[in-house]
Amino acid sequence: MLPGPTNVPERVMRSMITPMINHRSDDFVELYEDAVEKTKKVFRTDGEAVCLSASGTGAVEASVINLIKKGDKVIIPVNGEFSGRLSQMLEWAGANVIKLETAPGTNAAFDDVKAAFDNNKDVKAFYCVWNETSTGTMINYLDRIKDLTARNDSYYVVDGVSIVGGEELYVDKWGIDVCMTGAQKAFAAPPGISPIVVNKRAKKYMIENPPNTMYFNLSRYFKYYEEAKHTPFTPALPLLYAYREALSMILEEGLDARIRRHRICSQALYSGLSAIGLTPFAKEDARSTVVVALNYLEGLEDKKFRNTLAEKFRVLVAGGFGNLKGKVFRVGCMGEVNKYHVMRTISAISSTLDMMGYKTNPDALRVAEEKLKPL
Amino acid sequence: MLPGPTNVPERVMRSMITPMINHRSDDFVELYEDAVEKTKKVFRTDGEAVCLSASGTGAVEASVINLIKKGDKVIIPVNGEFSGRLSQMLEWAGANVIKLETAPGTNAAFDDVKAAFDNNKDVKAFYCVWNETSTGTMINYLDRIKDLTARNDSYYVVDGVSIVGGEELYVDKWGIDVCMTGAQKAFAAPPGISPIVVNKRAKKYMIENPPNTMYFNLSRYFKYYEEAKHTPFTPALPLLYAYREALSMILEEGLDARIRRHRICSQALYSGLSAIGLTPFAKEDARSTVVVALNYLEGLEDKKFRNTLAEKFRVLVAGGFGNLKGKVFRVGCMGEVNKYHVMRTISAISSTLDMMGYKTNPDALRVAEEKLKPL
Repeated sequence: MLPGPTNVPERVMRSMITPMINHRSDDFVELYEDAVEKTKKVFRTDGEAVCLSASGTGAVEASVINLIKKGDKVIIPVNGEFSGRLSQMLEWAGANVIKLETAPGTNAAFDDVKAAFDNNKDVKAFYCVWNETSTGTMINYLDRIKDLTARNDSYYVVDGVSIVGGEELYVDKWGIDVCMTGAQKAFAAPPGISPIVVNKRAKKYMIENPPNTMYFNLSRYFKYYEEAKHTPFTPALPLLYAYREALSMILEEGLDARIRRHRICSQALYSGLSAIGLTPFAKEDARSTVVVALNYLEGLEDKKFRNTLAEKFRVLVAGGFGNLKGKVFRVGCMGEVNKYHVMRTISAISSTLDMMGYKTNPDALRVAEEKLKPL
Repeated sequence: MLPGPTNVPERVMRSMITPMINHRSDDFVELYEDAVEKTKKVFRTDGEAVCLSASGTGAVEASVINLIKKGDKVIIPVNGEFSGRLSQMLEWAGANVIKLETAPGTNAAFDDVKAAFDNNKDVKAFYCVWNETSTGTMINYLDRIKDLTARNDSYYVVDGVSIVGGEELYVDKWGIDVCMTGAQKAFAAPPGISPIVVNKRAKKYMIENPPNTMYFNLSRYFKYYEEAKHTPFTPALPLLYAYREALSMILEEGLDARIRRHRICSQALYSGLSAIGLTPFAKEDARSTVVVALNYLEGLEDKKFRNTLAEKFRVLVAGGFGNLKGKVFRVGCMGEVNKYHVMRTISAISSTLDMMGYKTNPDALRVAEEKLKPL
């Protein structure tokens, strides 16, 4: 139940055991083109997709170095570890960064974003971290940003690293120019492949203004793909097989069904764990449907709690990040998550609290079960 | 018989099928620390090792952006695709690059390197591509550079992407400050992990002068490793298991035995294929022991030759790069290569030439067999 790397289905794991091929062969073209086309379906875009052999951070950095130049004005909401890092990368690229800072667990209101656009008519791009994994906080107004970026044709970039495939996303319809994720999150593939999608307009800009770097230079990827459906550098072949297989499973389940499953499971986790007395860290209107972050009960020791959970019940959850270390724990609700995972997790957390001398609520599982009924 | 990705042993492939773990757990620490320690043994260094989740190019770029600043003077021999790329990356980093250009298939003479040091007392670093994969050309004087860099404490960086593990290397003894490779070459692991080793002096410089980038910022890797034996970003877990297993196999065989095997196999390939009438592309004193590049016979068509070899005999070899496309083909002699691979490859090439109407030499296999006797 980690917020990534998540459990990887047997079928996806097995696909890695494919003998090595030449990454300049027809066999590779068949594999890579299929991975690219399926990526576009999951992001709901007709733009370009590049599957980078790197972690999600690599894909996020690619979105910055290929689009942002010295002096560019960029608006970004900042409310946790990952939005902080992204904002740092924008500054390194020389951007004039307008940070909309809010307390962890809360989001900048849409009206504040609108005001930032009103006050900065020369903005070049709006960046946001859709799902702040460090605090289980999710932005709910991605579909409304387009009207703001449309005013001056500024770019709209969504860091979807921990959530794409687990929550509703329409890249083209919502006017998103660049979006990326990591394979080890809601795609339920192993870590190491991070796709980035780029629409026509942003692609044109990137080709005309390539950065002075090699590995994350997207114009190189576009060129190699156009010429031969290759990647410029040797890709992580076993992970690419796994990634393609995971995407096939997503499309077989259907995106709508998959998103519904994620939503129902997260609602059950929030309800069941609240019934035990644990309070969600994020404010109600900002709660993520893929990462459930909870405040520790008074005096409950992080390491001991998570170790008991892991050793006695083989349920793995994550600790807090930075300032929140020891104050919250985080339950991933992504990828293959289903009702059995939810019930087992609530049961194990409840039993662990019992063992550590806390009063729990026998009704918690019934509350969760009720929420899980539609599955 | 590709010059990477090479065949991966069953045992290494199987190791990828390990359930996902938390990359912030003790299980991960056990895995990563072992991979790091084994990497140091193979590079023969007591310095630091970082296993990057990226292709070899990523590790090469890391060596540039972490060490080279605007205006730094760098000497680099350039004689092919990969040394050209590295020199481009150095220029992008703002370096004043002194290129020692020689024709493909030949190396700058050691005396020319020495002269470049004599004429540039203020040089900050010497970079070189040890094995130029694009032409099967290898530098033979890595052990003699130390005397030059020692004069003004300049840095010595070796791009060993296609060769480390297949030819003799003593990072510490030879005074190399930074060296890297790709797992899919002579290590016989899948592509996607690229280790970089950094000695104390270079590490200190990198920590004191970190680059304004995220994913390849080595100071971040040093910090995470020192604090908890973690990596800063989610690593490609299945590939890390495979990489660690491949290193175990290398150390079980023994580095000396492995290097001897590579040398004997490449000598047998050069001799056997020469007996057929194919001439090595590289000049005799510059021939690689891990990538054997051969000139095509007059009129022999690249695509048809390689396709016949692949389809009729399941032997994969690579074509030429850039200007050499259609003029040479390249046989990888790395990783698991043994006498059976060598004999089958010579036999298949000979038969393919027969089928394409070329006169071959029935003695070729006997010539190769003679060379393989010590194995």
